[in-house]
Amino acid sequence: MSAIQARVEAALGRLLPAPDIVPQRLHQAMRYAALGGGKRVRPLLAFAAGDLATADASRVEIVACAVECIHAYSLVHDDLPCMDDDVLRRGRPTCHVEYDEATALLAGDSLQAVAFQLLAEHRLAGDAETQLEMLRILAAACGSRGMAGGQAIDLASVGKPLALTELEHMHIHKTGALIRASVALGARCGATLSIDELGQLDRYAKLVGLAFQVVDDVLDCEASTATLGKTAGKDAAANKPTYVSVLGVAGARAMADELRVDARKALSGFGAKAKRLAALADFIVLRKF
Amino acid sequence: MSAIQARVEAALGRLLPAPDIVPQRLHQAMRYAALGGGKRVRPLLAFAAGDLATADASRVEIVACAVECIHAYSLVHDDLPCMDDDVLRRGRPTCHVEYDEATALLAGDSLQAVAFQLLAEHRLAGDAETQLEMLRILAAACGSRGMAGGQAIDLASVGKPLALTELEHMHIHKTGALIRASVALGARCGATLSIDELGQLDRYAKLVGLAFQVVDDVLDCEASTATLGKTAGKDAAANKPTYVSVLGVAGARAMADELRVDARKALSGFGAKAKRLAALADFIVLRKF
Repeated sequence: MSAIQARVEAALGRLLPAPDIVPQRLHQAMRYAALGGGKRVRPLLAFAAGDLATADASRVEIVACAVECIHAYSLVHDDLPCMDDDVLRRGRPTCHVEYDEATALLAGDSLQAVAFQLLAEHRLAGDAETQLEMLRILAAACGSRGMAGGQAIDLASVGKPLALTELEHMHIHKTGALIRASVALGARCGATLSIDELGQLDRYAKLVGLAFQVVDDVLDCEASTATLGKTAGKDAAANKPTYVSVLGVAGARAMADELRVDARKALSGFGAKAKRLAALADFIVLRKF
Repeated sequence: MSAIQARVEAALGRLLPAPDIVPQRLHQAMRYAALGGGKRVRPLLAFAAGDLATADASRVEIVACAVECIHAYSLVHDDLPCMDDDVLRRGRPTCHVEYDEATALLAGDSLQAVAFQLLAEHRLAGDAETQLEMLRILAAACGSRGMAGGQAIDLASVGKPLALTELEHMHIHKTGALIRASVALGARCGATLSIDELGQLDRYAKLVGLAFQVVDDVLDCEASTATLGKTAGKDAAANKPTYVSVLGVAGARAMADELRVDARKALSGFGAKAKRLAALADFIVLRKF
């Protein structure tokens, strides 16, 4: 895992515009937002799915950087004063605190464009048609019926008691869409899988995406700001519905473990080929930060 | 021209998520930002370039909507308090005034994703490779070395006296990149043009893009807020360098006319096939708003 994390860090460093290219401040802010940390969960999932499809690692690397650019852009925009108004991320000042709001806004906008540029500029699949499909998958995952839409539902839910199904609906969009895309894109870098196999992978990704968020809610409640590298206890303070507020800590932990087991089951048809994806389900649920 | 404007309005209305789809408020804000006005200069350029390449209008329509979504997203983000802090656009309250800042931020983000989704979802070129090239063109035009980068240079230039070449550098990115992309994408919907022909079109687009901005600066200075539908005199008030501040009104007008003549000359190799592009050069320079 740390080898992949280091590889993605190096690739992002190489693929993002250099800090001395005009406009320097914007490029520095983009690099600040995307480099230097994070668990790189989405890249790890892309590589594990690529592994299952015996994909060329140099292709998966591009996909991993693209999904990570989208993730980084979403964090920069979510942290802005008009959204979550947060000052700490990955143990450092958030992008708008380190630079300024206007630069952070443009850095997020530009990181989104980089993601699409990466998927359009590199040869990532056996044929151009598959690559167009990959661009469709990423665009759908980012947009108003994916990640950005989930964020809008999140905003609208502040202070409202949500039922478990509504909470799931929000997170399936907010974090789930990009996690699903990471798996789908990693797999498409390799050998052509059957529709049935792609369906099994997508089921795994859906479950793991949800588990990721349930664990995030537990950690937001139980871990310290120092451990998380971001402000702990924020959701409760903001009166946001979470899995912990709906199920309690023990209930949320039990749900995460159930999702972990189901996610592993979804992989059963693949046998040993899916061992890295299975291990990631464990990592996502058992992590401490 | 008005037929194309109406066609683009109708297509955007059809292609953007309906206002009653969850999350409704986000989708309403996206539609508010993209529908109901604007000169649609970029779509007009795409259609005129498509016309030259005898492109199928149903393809050009998608390209026109994609570039217009990018343009609309850039206006929404530029109008935010942390950027230009503007309250009036196309004669109506800006998106964050009509909705709220967070919704406007997400609406802009989502409109960017829509643009890439449109180019990836529809069959727009004879082969998938050309379509991937179109996605590359759009991504490069939007990003930190295109439109968003121009906006960053603009921010950095407030209060600084700029030489004419620096001003050009800023606008070649800020407004020029997307205008060039509009022409390039429209042309690629049709018959394959030679590298030489594409180069002539790109030269035309560069000149017209610059002319557009020079005229914008003149109008910002001479026209009323009511005529423009956006706050007039803003650049001078914000102490931003403009073509008028560098050249004076008469000098800026003379420069715009020179660019118009050069843009028409760049089309001379195409003969009558380029008559709509030539007419647009006139429209862009002679417009009153």
